[in-house]
Amino acid sequence: MKRNPIHLNLIIILVLMALGALTAARADGLPSWNEGPSRAAIVDFVADVTDAGGSNFVPPSERVAVFDNDGTLWAEQPLYFQAIYIFDRIKSLAPEHPEWKTEEPFASVLKSDHKAALAGGGEALLKMAAATHAGITAEEFNQSVRTWISTARHPKTDRPYNEMVYQPMLEALNYLRANDFKTFIVSGGGIDFMRVFAEETYGIPPEQIIGSSIKAGYEIRDGKPTIVKLPELNFIDDKAGKPVGIHQHIGRRPIAAFGNSDGDFEMLEWTTAGKSPRLGVIIHHTDADREWAYDRDSHIGRLDKALDGASQRGWVVVNMKSDWSRIYPEGE
Amino acid sequence: MKRNPIHLNLIIILVLMALGALTAARADGLPSWNEGPSRAAIVDFVADVTDAGGSNFVPPSERVAVFDNDGTLWAEQPLYFQAIYIFDRIKSLAPEHPEWKTEEPFASVLKSDHKAALAGGGEALLKMAAATHAGITAEEFNQSVRTWISTARHPKTDRPYNEMVYQPMLEALNYLRANDFKTFIVSGGGIDFMRVFAEETYGIPPEQIIGSSIKAGYEIRDGKPTIVKLPELNFIDDKAGKPVGIHQHIGRRPIAAFGNSDGDFEMLEWTTAGKSPRLGVIIHHTDADREWAYDRDSHIGRLDKALDGASQRGWVVVNMKSDWSRIYPEGE
Repeated sequence: MKRNPIHLNLIIILVLMALGALTAARADGLPSWNEGPSRAAIVDFVADVTDAGGSNFVPPSERVAVFDNDGTLWAEQPLYFQAIYIFDRIKSLAPEHPEWKTEEPFASVLKSDHKAALAGGGEALLKMAAATHAGITAEEFNQSVRTWISTARHPKTDRPYNEMVYQPMLEALNYLRANDFKTFIVSGGGIDFMRVFAEETYGIPPEQIIGSSIKAGYEIRDGKPTIVKLPELNFIDDKAGKPVGIHQHIGRRPIAAFGNSDGDFEMLEWTTAGKSPRLGVIIHHTDADREWAYDRDSHIGRLDKALDGASQRGWVVVNMKSDWSRIYPEGE
Repeated sequence: MKRNPIHLNLIIILVLMALGALTAARADGLPSWNEGPSRAAIVDFVADVTDAGGSNFVPPSERVAVFDNDGTLWAEQPLYFQAIYIFDRIKSLAPEHPEWKTEEPFASVLKSDHKAALAGGGEALLKMAAATHAGITAEEFNQSVRTWISTARHPKTDRPYNEMVYQPMLEALNYLRANDFKTFIVSGGGIDFMRVFAEETYGIPPEQIIGSSIKAGYEIRDGKPTIVKLPELNFIDDKAGKPVGIHQHIGRRPIAAFGNSDGDFEMLEWTTAGKSPRLGVIIHHTDADREWAYDRDSHIGRLDKALDGASQRGWVVVNMKSDWSRIYPEGE
């Protein structure tokens, strides 16, 4: 079949008309954001970089927006949800590991002493991740997370963890995508863990997720080509690791970055130091009634250096209590 | 502004009509592929997985197609183009490194004895890459590659290297994308090297490129947040590294894979072992007149195990000489 140039022109005009109308229809898609400077800063930034006639126009291919996950897209209290998953997994695997009864940090997990279990910090968590994930296939791991997400409930709200996501942030993701941004998660959490639910929960496909990881190997197992998780650290996607992870995975500097803790400082610093308009956003947990209130002294999601950085660098600080009319999506 | 549902429905109908017409117009977009079994296998596969009513339908989000670069999307003779870039860079940096005159493999490069320079295989090439890339910023590296691509010429054809790409493969990339595939490069070559030209040359954005890499770091250099290349190997994206790189970067198994050498064997093996219809394609270099003819005994792009694998596993073997009516795009 040969292309008919006149027919093609008509098609292109129809597509552009239709897409233009759709974009306009979605331009106001932030209903859970109260009127105020935070909402205005986001809307103004998007209007600025998408104004085809303006001096700050950014072509769609360069509209990269990155989002931390824990504390930015979903909650992170009383402790990181992935830590709860790992604890649950240790408990279910314990019958096969009698040595865990006396070996830390496993012993503390089995006594449900989460504070002691996490006393060893990130290193202890990695040790537990390696012990519970390594050696299994990628598909077995995915299935385990899928089952956990569909059955586990948050200790305070009794919601499934994938309903502990922030409705205003779901709207921000959609709003940016409606304006031809490509949205990525850049999290200290496990890349494969997030990939199980992020597409359904956030509309973010696996290939747009960056996170911490253990190494993987390729082998023929039971006659089938298989990806297997290995007990060796691959990458820690936190602090200065975030710009490095973005560089390795995306290959260009974002123009917008959303975070909530000191682990996001370097990501926002690098993003907002680029030429052209940039948007840096810090979600400040200020709502003890509807969510949690914490910042400089919190053991989870500590926000200290990045809060100072925000005022020095013009990052938007979202006050959850006053800027968001709703925290979570409505229940099912 | 409120959405008007009737207006929105009309818009959606217009978009679907227009996109449908566009897809139909592009369904035959393989003009440089001669009629025959290779072309038919590709077209039949795409028709099969995009047939919304059929039992083999694959939703667009899972339509992932991966492409090797050297020897699959562009030529790789008389040696990998990135090796030529590294040799050129060694020559330009030589005045600052008098020790290279007597130190291998640098001494052989400076004498233009490429065979001796590459006698150490991949390890020698990595040593040269680390010596010439490490310590510079990502932006400096990009600029260096950009300058090289715009000035260097192929020793045999006198074409710029980014015009040594295969026209039929450009058509295959466009054809798959027109059918809602996401196209990725998965190459043993350097990830940052390819990212400089791949978007313009192949229509593949930086975030859809997977390759070998050295480590990177984040630092404040001259007061500016900067990504710096470090003299340490990060990842080798070849052989069994290819499925691992795909797992880490994309997070799901492709449904189509294109390669040309034994370095692509595991990528095709893993891709085509998945459930549902899969497409594995091997580009066989059979045209000594228009390009090069080589396979089982070649030191570059050796195709031996993967050629046997193709007949055992039903992979399509493209005969460049008879399947392609044209090799390169027309000159400028």
